[in-house]
Amino acid sequence: MTASEAAPVDERLCTIGRALGVVGDKWTLRILCEAALNGVSRFTDFQDLLGIATDVLAQRLNKLVDEGLLAKRSYKEPGRRARFQYEPTEAGRDMRLVLAALQQWGDVHRPGCSGLTEIGRTVSRGTPVRVDFVDADGTVVAADDIAYRYAL
Amino acid sequence: MTASEAAPVDERLCTIGRALGVVGDKWTLRILCEAALNGVSRFTDFQDLLGIATDVLAQRLNKLVDEGLLAKRSYKEPGRRARFQYEPTEAGRDMRLVLAALQQWGDVHRPGCSGLTEIGRTVSRGTPVRVDFVDADGTVVAADDIAYRYAL
Repeated sequence: MTASEAAPVDERLCTIGRALGVVGDKWTLRILCEAALNGVSRFTDFQDLLGIATDVLAQRLNKLVDEGLLAKRSYKEPGRRARFQYEPTEAGRDMRLVLAALQQWGDVHRPGCSGLTEIGRTVSRGTPVRVDFVDADGTVVAADDIAYRYAL
Repeated sequence: MTASEAAPVDERLCTIGRALGVVGDKWTLRILCEAALNGVSRFTDFQDLLGIATDVLAQRLNKLVDEGLLAKRSYKEPGRRARFQYEPTEAGRDMRLVLAALQQWGDVHRPGCSGLTEIGRTVSRGTPVRVDFVDADGTVVAADDIAYRYAL
């Protein structure tokens, strides 16, 4: 399923509202984090990691498949019955930027007991990364130096 | 109210989940967009722009104040009774990055009829901006070149 075939667009909502509507649920979000940031794909692994009821997990995974953020396929280990795994699509992978921006905000304004978390590090150089506003030429821009064009 | 005095932290949720819990509601999000990106501050202006019921608007604005994202103060025009306005705090302004990342995702994966929206332009140079991953030295990093450290 391509993005344009995904759930119907509610034109009364702004782009932002439509985007958040996809992940605006605690379990959906945690599943997406595990899938897009941690490489978790098997139903049983989501279940073990999140301690989520089977029916709730199945419902949320199906929602993410219907919305075009995860792709479902079956796999079979020798001597066992077929099972399902779920892998992020391009739309799912593109959520990494949103999730990281949320993580950064939460680190500052809703810190947990365990202190600052880390978004990640570059594979090529091992240096820590963050999310920021950048210019067309890739220069970091201060949030206060932007005239926002938010519109419905 | 400072961020640390805001709503109690749910340690069972990841940083991302806690961050999204603050804005994971359609009206809360739209109000925050108008306040943080469009400079709307007066109760009556939110009402006119969003076409939202008075009690719903009051409840969502109070939630954003309780969560430390908006600050409420009264103002008075000559000959009229005192009214309220709501201005983004640092925590509210810091949400601009999250909102912009969501807008960018929505533009690609949930486009509206009116086509691509624009995040904004630099005040100093008038060039369009976007949200991206950057390195410690401000170099843009590809999302696939990152080893994510997402953890609860």
